[in-house]
Amino acid sequence: MNAVSTPTALQRWFPILDWGRRYNRSLLTADGVAAVVVTLMLIPQSLAYALLAGLPAQAGLYASMAPLVLYALMGSSGTLAVGPAAVTSLMTAASVGAVAAQGSVAYTEAALMLALLSGALMLVMGAARLGFLANFLSHPVISGFVSASGLLIAASQLKHLLGVPLHGENLLQLLPQLWHNLSSLHVPTSAMGLGALALLLLVRRQLKPGLKRLGVSAGAADLAAKAAPVVVLLLSIALSAVWQLAEQGVRVVGTVPQGLPPLTLPGGSTGGWAAPWALAQALWVPALLISLVGFVESVSVGQSLAAKRRERIDPDAELRALGLSNLGAGLSGGFPVTGGFSRSVVNFDAGARTPAAGIFTAVGLALAALFLTPWLFHLPQATLAATIMVAVLTLVDVGVFARTWHYAKADFIALLLTFGLTLAVGVEAGLIAGVSASVLLLLYRTSRPHIAVVGQVPGTEHYRNVLRHVVLEQPGILGLRVDESLYFANARFLEDTIAAQVAVRPGVRHVVLQCSAVNDIDASALESLETINARLQASGVQLHLSEVKGPVHDRLKRSHLLAELSGQVFLTHHQAVMALAPSEPV
Amino acid sequence: MNAVSTPTALQRWFPILDWGRRYNRSLLTADGVAAVVVTLMLIPQSLAYALLAGLPAQAGLYASMAPLVLYALMGSSGTLAVGPAAVTSLMTAASVGAVAAQGSVAYTEAALMLALLSGALMLVMGAARLGFLANFLSHPVISGFVSASGLLIAASQLKHLLGVPLHGENLLQLLPQLWHNLSSLHVPTSAMGLGALALLLLVRRQLKPGLKRLGVSAGAADLAAKAAPVVVLLLSIALSAVWQLAEQGVRVVGTVPQGLPPLTLPGGSTGGWAAPWALAQALWVPALLISLVGFVESVSVGQSLAAKRRERIDPDAELRALGLSNLGAGLSGGFPVTGGFSRSVVNFDAGARTPAAGIFTAVGLALAALFLTPWLFHLPQATLAATIMVAVLTLVDVGVFARTWHYAKADFIALLLTFGLTLAVGVEAGLIAGVSASVLLLLYRTSRPHIAVVGQVPGTEHYRNVLRHVVLEQPGILGLRVDESLYFANARFLEDTIAAQVAVRPGVRHVVLQCSAVNDIDASALESLETINARLQASGVQLHLSEVKGPVHDRLKRSHLLAELSGQVFLTHHQAVMALAPSEPV
Repeated sequence: MNAVSTPTALQRWFPILDWGRRYNRSLLTADGVAAVVVTLMLIPQSLAYALLAGLPAQAGLYASMAPLVLYALMGSSGTLAVGPAAVTSLMTAASVGAVAAQGSVAYTEAALMLALLSGALMLVMGAARLGFLANFLSHPVISGFVSASGLLIAASQLKHLLGVPLHGENLLQLLPQLWHNLSSLHVPTSAMGLGALALLLLVRRQLKPGLKRLGVSAGAADLAAKAAPVVVLLLSIALSAVWQLAEQGVRVVGTVPQGLPPLTLPGGSTGGWAAPWALAQALWVPALLISLVGFVESVSVGQSLAAKRRERIDPDAELRALGLSNLGAGLSGGFPVTGGFSRSVVNFDAGARTPAAGIFTAVGLALAALFLTPWLFHLPQATLAATIMVAVLTLVDVGVFARTWHYAKADFIALLLTFGLTLAVGVEAGLIAGVSASVLLLLYRTSRPHIAVVGQVPGTEHYRNVLRHVVLEQPGILGLRVDESLYFANARFLEDTIAAQVAVRPGVRHVVLQCSAVNDIDASALESLETINARLQASGVQLHLSEVKGPVHDRLKRSHLLAELSGQVFLTHHQAVMALAPSEPV
Repeated sequence: MNAVSTPTALQRWFPILDWGRRYNRSLLTADGVAAVVVTLMLIPQSLAYALLAGLPAQAGLYASMAPLVLYALMGSSGTLAVGPAAVTSLMTAASVGAVAAQGSVAYTEAALMLALLSGALMLVMGAARLGFLANFLSHPVISGFVSASGLLIAASQLKHLLGVPLHGENLLQLLPQLWHNLSSLHVPTSAMGLGALALLLLVRRQLKPGLKRLGVSAGAADLAAKAAPVVVLLLSIALSAVWQLAEQGVRVVGTVPQGLPPLTLPGGSTGGWAAPWALAQALWVPALLISLVGFVESVSVGQSLAAKRRERIDPDAELRALGLSNLGAGLSGGFPVTGGFSRSVVNFDAGARTPAAGIFTAVGLALAALFLTPWLFHLPQATLAATIMVAVLTLVDVGVFARTWHYAKADFIALLLTFGLTLAVGVEAGLIAGVSASVLLLLYRTSRPHIAVVGQVPGTEHYRNVLRHVVLEQPGILGLRVDESLYFANARFLEDTIAAQVAVRPGVRHVVLQCSAVNDIDASALESLETINARLQASGVQLHLSEVKGPVHDRLKRSHLLAELSGQVFLTHHQAVMALAPSEPV
């Protein structure tokens, strides 16, 4: 009834029902222009990421059609462009390569299964509002992982760029092979690859400022810089065709089937369900990692772009939309997709306003798949490799190491571990080790909380750390402030600390725990408090609590602690000291 | 030089150098008496736990000798008694049973390897001061695990108690078999087992109060109650010998080799190192879990007993001592050991003062192994099973479920998951799931911290939650208090919350984050604060911080945040509001 102002539940699940009603000619124009720009950029990029994932070129085009349309139905971002992305393509190659030989039918089927599994996992996580799981990928872990992935991707492309045989999923495998095989590099391939690489780097760094110096307008220079990679591509196709490089052993894209994506069902080649089921069991862990990495990339890009326009995106809606997109990719000859950084930024810059731009881009790519593919026959794989390398080198963030080292050593450890293991072992090992390390380091940090002995700031009702301030301590009373929530990882430390502090103060008759920074007390910490209370009581010392926060106090009332407590609970620490000090025979 | 008052580094590693110098006749008497009591108790208990671990009876005696002597060298507790314990024996049976068939030479060798690995892991963890890792076993996880283990142990003993064939490591395997095989139970075995069980339960519950009612002194009644299980054992040996029960198919302990423990080296049966290496790879995860569970049990018992005498134990020293003990067990025909609850309590009650009591106990058990083993030939396994069942039923804590449910639902989930999976799948799965669940639940709880909008309590400089108190808000200023440290799991939530709060207050020009409850800001949260600052700035809103704690402020100074911050850092929230309010054209 009131559809435009407050979205209904159906509209929250399918935002297209909301923005679709308000669609008009001006939005159509903006989205249409953006779609043309993005289509031109996506044709080479899709082919390149298919190459990176170890799949036939057309898989890259297919993976950019159905997902874009499906994302438009459920996505909450107006500018996110969904399709193959660098890091998820590398992860696809690593995980699919572990279960099938590259180039085989089984490899293609495994990539489809991976997309289906990622899609299903994302849909389930989105429906169960588990988007917060992506938060477990800390910034240092993501940063180390993305930088290492960029280097790995670049290294993996050397085989196409130079025409040397290379197999492996980490630098420890790739680099020695490169060293041994460097003498057998294929000269025409290397010439084409290195030439394209040099030209692309030159264009990226010099074209825009150069044109501006020549008096070209900023807008035109920008457009030229964006179109330049397509020109490099066309140039290398022309050279390859004229000199018949394929006959000299330069690998080219070759025949790309003309037409729209096929419908691909799991078990299609065998007809049975046993093989797909076994495949799903082998691939679900990589699928989960790809889902999380893809989701984090997509949400980060989507939130940054939305914030620039004062819009917001809904992470759980994004999960569902990406899930549907991946299901679409898995059923239409593609491989895992996500909201990619470069394509989304181009889409945003080109003026896209709604997900309809994605639908138009899909139409553009469909036209390309129908009519342009014969033109791609002579495109050298070395040129695509050069395209990938230029793109992924922007992923490598060298400065993050120094910044993180200066800021926090624990974060640096997680960063270095993720970076090192991703390079030396592989993407899965790096990611899992990084997440485990950041959780363990968190638990370690909070397992030894800061516990200060506090005394009264003279003339006030404030109590501060005796080591940092000149304060008064009442004999017989030990005031302790715990600067952390109490939970299983630090419960025993609290027991030890209190025992140690009481042991060096034989005159103490009262211990007052100031709980102003305690946001929670879990069952393990409750158990420890009961133990501390009993042990202190056995040695003639009373345990008191002060400044217990409302929710914590409410919860403690549901336990036996308050009934068993040898002392009392005071509203303020000062009240505790006032009540306990005078009556105390020291 | 000053050895007695301040222990040297060597004495911290080998506490025997400290207490050994002060050893005297009165300590000798106390320790000697305790040793006699514990030896009498340990003979049946050691045999029973060997049976539980699936090993020959002598392994239980061997595992109680070398470990006790080695613990005495490095242990910091004067009363802990080291040897096989119920839960670690069950875990041994589960993990060794997964790599070798019970009764085979390979099974015994795997148990030795498990002890060696546990010992090595504990020594490494102790040397690296990783004792805090045991804190990751939260109280609900330990509680659920121990209760489920008690039930599992009792169920696993039904095969010996009733003489029915049963194989399996969880209730889902054991119970259906029990149901099917109940008709084929062995009548003489069941009679002996159930008879012993009834007698032991009767003795445990009625003997002490009964004797007291008959006018026997409390001390004598206590001694009788402790000696009664040995009497039940002797009675069943006598019955078994007289009626020649072994010939009627009742399984008896049989021939136990007379003599001291052999030296057992890994690879002993094959002579090579390949097989032990493969075995070590297969067993290191179970060894780690056994180490952690054993360490937690040992430290809990040790701390409780030490506190009763106003003594303290050193958890890292305990880890090293237990590590050495397990190495000893692995090299002398034993299996994984720990500081057991029941034997340590008996040792304490009997008056043990130093680890020398353990050395004397080891001598007592050596004498038993040399001279008493022929007397054990006729001991029915059903009696040992009854001994185990009576002992482990005290492990089951029914009340913990209701208590934890009332206190904290998250802890209840971890408790139930650990309990359920341990029973339904097995000890390893239960423990791993429990630890994972408690970490995930912790991250989930802290990933959505309480963030309050704060306003001024009229007439004061205090700021409180606007939802809970009547407070004044300055137009144009949004004060937010975050009740949690900021780290990777809640960094994005903070971004979302601030964006949402600003979005509903179009007039806001200043956001002031009150950081009084923020004990830490990690690199991910720093990144989020920078993002928040940039986004707010882009929409004309300044970000300020107030009441930043000293260590947090020190760390922020090493980042770019303070330089890029659009606003300022204020000492108190009130100063922030005073500085920002008057100059603001609302």
